Amino acid sequence: MLSKSQINLLKSLQHKKFRRDAGLFLVEGHKSIIEFADSPYQIETVYHIPRFDSKVLKLSQKINLCEISVTDLEKISSLKTPQDVVAQIKIPAWPALGHLELKGKFSLALDGVQDPGNMGTIIRIADWFGVERIICSEDTVDVYNPKVVQASMGSLARVKVYYTELGALLSSVKMPVFGALLSGNNIYNTDFGHEGLILMGNEGNGIRPETEKLITRAVTIPRAGKAESLNVAIATALFCSEISRKALK
Amino acid sequence: MLSKSQINLLKSLQHKKFRRDAGLFLVEGHKSIIEFADSPYQIETVYHIPRFDSKVLKLSQKINLCEISVTDLEKISSLKTPQDVVAQIKIPAWPALGHLELKGKFSLALDGVQDPGNMGTIIRIADWFGVERIICSEDTVDVYNPKVVQASMGSLARVKVYYTELGALLSSVKMPVFGALLSGNNIYNTDFGHEGLILMGNEGNGIRPETEKLITRAVTIPRAGKAESLNVAIATALFCSEISRKALK
Repeated sequence: MLSKSQINLLKSLQHKKFRRDAGLFLVEGHKSIIEFADSPYQIETVYHIPRFDSKVLKLSQKINLCEISVTDLEKISSLKTPQDVVAQIKIPAWPALGHLELKGKFSLALDGVQDPGNMGTIIRIADWFGVERIICSEDTVDVYNPKVVQASMGSLARVKVYYTELGALLSSVKMPVFGALLSGNNIYNTDFGHEGLILMGNEGNGIRPETEKLITRAVTIPRAGKAESLNVAIATALFCSEISRKALK
Repeated sequence: MLSKSQINLLKSLQHKKFRRDAGLFLVEGHKSIIEFADSPYQIETVYHIPRFDSKVLKLSQKINLCEISVTDLEKISSLKTPQDVVAQIKIPAWPALGHLELKGKFSLALDGVQDPGNMGTIIRIADWFGVERIICSEDTVDVYNPKVVQASMGSLARVKVYYTELGALLSSVKMPVFGALLSGNNIYNTDFGHEGLILMGNEGNGIRPETEKLITRAVTIPRAGKAESLNVAIATALFCSEISRKALK
């Protein structure tokens, strides 16, 4: 059974400020928890209801297991239909991102993506295509937001997400910055080479003018129909696919 | 000012049964309404709050304009933050889908897609890539669901969506049925030819076994990383992109 203060702490983790203060976030559902258990993330406690068999998680013995009531689970869950198990996980302090880590590969850069569902889907896409790092402007939605974690379907356990002053980073990297713009080189004719940053913008406003200036290779997804735009996660997937297609053929 | 029974009717359109009984659905926001006004859909009434200038909609004179209070707008809207204008539109009765209409082009087929956000995004993708028709199994989410309409961002005005016994259709069309499966031909090496149906499955369960049997060309999106799967809208976009890339180059 959970105390009232424990429940309050766990509930508070739905808000960014409290997550950052406590250095903790929640992951719901056994499928996602298994991915985090098999990752550099450190699981502190796993809360589960009596009917859940915690053996399916294959946890190391260091992790606290705590059986809770269905009522308590409903209180701490951010889901309409809670799953049987929730893990309390430490927010990691990755070593600062060095330019060397970006060399010889492709990383994503997000300029103000706001929708948690889009962010989670982008993490899942990165994981599918083997993109290891996502670099976000400070105002991009928090990656430990419960809806982001949920939408990433466990992929967050493998993809590293950094928040930084994006302009400073883009202007100092010595590699191409590919930006999704309306008037750029046709993506289907673009040779992406062997390294670079793929810059995507906010859902409504696109890439900020001051960030746009730092694009060295503007790229456009041509359209055959009439839709005004593509969703940012869809555009990200099309970029990742084009970059990977030679290697994946 | 709206009467109580008018408000109840408009609110009831959030539910499929009442939409189908009344033959009506709602579209919110001036951007989407402009797309429907410029389409074969028939707008019956436009409800707007006093501060909204209905001239931006460029409506024909046949359409009823009805000024309502902000309170009434909040009652009939399905959005947390309602926009200033809502249109009541007739659900069209498209002529039955003939095989001739599918000839020489690509159409999408959806086997039990459930999430309204995914459905709306798929409609927007179809519109971007010039795919004119989406054929759905009877249990696919209703296309006039407010969340689908919202997520389609006006593209629903241009893409025709049909509900039918999908198995019967797939077994009678005389063209390739491409299905997204885990063990198929590499999508990056697939020659899609000039016509066909692209079959996508349910979010959790994929394509039903009995529908899967009707696939004539299994196709796989290869992965470089470790994500277990891709979101159905993302997979749809990658298929549409591969089919279009030759023409769009």
